[in-house]
Amino acid sequence: MRIVKVPLGHRSYTIKVGGGLLSRLGVECAQLKLGKRCAVITDANVGKHFAKLALKSLAASGFEPVLITVPAGEKSKSIAVVGDCYDQLAGHRLERKSFIVALGGGVVGDLAGFVAATYLRGIPFIQVPTTLLAQVDSSVGGKTGVNLKSGKNLVGAFYQPQLVLCDLDTLKTLPKREYVSGLGEIIKYGIIYDAILFAQLEHNLPKLLQRDELTLRSVVSRCCEIKADVVGQDEMECGLRAILNFGHTIGHAIENSSGYGKFLHGEAISIGQVAAARLSHTILGLPSGEVDRIEKLFVRAGLPVKIRLNPPQRRKLFAAMKLDKKVSRGDVKFVLAKKIGRVVWGQQVPSPQIEKVLAAPL
Amino acid sequence: MRIVKVPLGHRSYTIKVGGGLLSRLGVECAQLKLGKRCAVITDANVGKHFAKLALKSLAASGFEPVLITVPAGEKSKSIAVVGDCYDQLAGHRLERKSFIVALGGGVVGDLAGFVAATYLRGIPFIQVPTTLLAQVDSSVGGKTGVNLKSGKNLVGAFYQPQLVLCDLDTLKTLPKREYVSGLGEIIKYGIIYDAILFAQLEHNLPKLLQRDELTLRSVVSRCCEIKADVVGQDEMECGLRAILNFGHTIGHAIENSSGYGKFLHGEAISIGQVAAARLSHTILGLPSGEVDRIEKLFVRAGLPVKIRLNPPQRRKLFAAMKLDKKVSRGDVKFVLAKKIGRVVWGQQVPSPQIEKVLAAPL
Repeated sequence: MRIVKVPLGHRSYTIKVGGGLLSRLGVECAQLKLGKRCAVITDANVGKHFAKLALKSLAASGFEPVLITVPAGEKSKSIAVVGDCYDQLAGHRLERKSFIVALGGGVVGDLAGFVAATYLRGIPFIQVPTTLLAQVDSSVGGKTGVNLKSGKNLVGAFYQPQLVLCDLDTLKTLPKREYVSGLGEIIKYGIIYDAILFAQLEHNLPKLLQRDELTLRSVVSRCCEIKADVVGQDEMECGLRAILNFGHTIGHAIENSSGYGKFLHGEAISIGQVAAARLSHTILGLPSGEVDRIEKLFVRAGLPVKIRLNPPQRRKLFAAMKLDKKVSRGDVKFVLAKKIGRVVWGQQVPSPQIEKVLAAPL
Repeated sequence: MRIVKVPLGHRSYTIKVGGGLLSRLGVECAQLKLGKRCAVITDANVGKHFAKLALKSLAASGFEPVLITVPAGEKSKSIAVVGDCYDQLAGHRLERKSFIVALGGGVVGDLAGFVAATYLRGIPFIQVPTTLLAQVDSSVGGKTGVNLKSGKNLVGAFYQPQLVLCDLDTLKTLPKREYVSGLGEIIKYGIIYDAILFAQLEHNLPKLLQRDELTLRSVVSRCCEIKADVVGQDEMECGLRAILNFGHTIGHAIENSSGYGKFLHGEAISIGQVAAARLSHTILGLPSGEVDRIEKLFVRAGLPVKIRLNPPQRRKLFAAMKLDKKVSRGDVKFVLAKKIGRVVWGQQVPSPQIEKVLAAPL
């Protein structure tokens, strides 16, 4: 097991990465001085595999868990489902010291985290991410939230968990496409922060694709470390934290304008990252050899790096980009790379250049 | 104008108390480095009197305000109304630097504050409380929230405003019963924290009942000072902040078990405070002369100090007390007074004693 600390003063917490952690859930929670009553929030897919084990482990440590199962999929990130969860928590008389366990992928983590942040003005919660994407990204850093009709994650809170348990065994049941989608975020950490990690990924990709546990443990914990480091310096996204959005400006717009579901998040941001690498070449002089290395690694991982758009689709994508919630006074800003391992944020890119990158080679 | 500082590190803010402040709203906001777009959230009753002035003042300082009007009354503190507000904010393209002005009483402040705390994971907001209760209590301290079917304020966030403007002129249009209800919280500050304030209230009550501006300015700002002092020491209600709940354990149960609306909040907590004073006499030896002074001041203010309950009503009230969200492991805890100006919290009171106080003289 590897341990990563997220340094946030009195809200600091620990991420544990390893195999067999889910069966230790109760023991781990028992060290946190929480109340007895708790709720495990999961979705129908994940619950099928892991809910029983989670509940059993909690009960064995003296907790009184209840299970709240939401439908699988992005649609559960809604105000309506949040309201249902509140009613169930109140029905089970969860008190201020009670806690919530988010057992699932990004959707469950974002939803359950927001519920925990706002029920009784905030009760403790534990993240047990069961997808690769959630383990390296959404479960760490305290962003929680749900969607509105007009956009994703438009409602939420910054709210830190008390513990993150990344059980690598849960990745074994993950469909291949979902697993590969997680690699999109992993490669991102190399580009934005750690050239050595990037080189290791180039070297170890075959093992990673085989879901080799030792490789996963090392890579997942390094990604969590990077995210913890960034979030520790800028929890509220006033500056540095923006680098985590490398490839996301275009990526989010692709997800949005194609009607969520066509591309998985990791797929959309792979296209976005390759586009951002090309913009980085034009604008910041990122060497073309590095642009090629970036594109090649995504391709080898099995991720898309191109998107074909007809003119109406392109217009839709541009409109979506301007709706991004990080837009300020209508300006779209990019995170761009100077070299692999080093990026800068807040880069204004003229629309024609974005057009060019999206039009030609993608 | 009096100025009170709420000391909360980088989230510190200022409360301004005086006449004519609403017309200065735009000028005041202009000093806070906020975005241009903003939303004034108000209710139908308050909006009728003050929305035009608020919008005009904001526009005159170069802001682009939109108006969101919710129905008047406690029912607007619901997940459904929160969802409506989100949709309107998104429709008007409010961004992260945009801000919300809560213009109204406690309901509007709690609702708009929660919306501000969670839209885009938190945007700035300004409180412009227009009732006496909101000016001395709910607008200060950062508690925001809405109700569930199963209880009041079960959902919310601790989220501090960037500025509170208490315009004493807005109190002129307040119905008498609502104004007097606010006095219930004002008297509380004397009991829990400031024997001199209590004596001043005994002396100046007639002027206060006439809504004399100088008296109001002094009293409202002193109450805000006390609340700021308490909240500055214990923002998240881990300890000291509990003293603000003097009289509220029974008060909330009265509101709840009588079906909200029969008693105004200030009325219910007046009954609760007199009951708590009597328990304080039995348990902590609060002199009976002080119990009498407390009861007499509430009576002179025109507030109720008794409630007649038949046995089923009494059972209902006890059940409601055990549902309070501050209950931990089923124990009901009280704030009790040692003397006027000095209270202690976390006092367990045996049920028969509560029974006795509620049964006999009330």
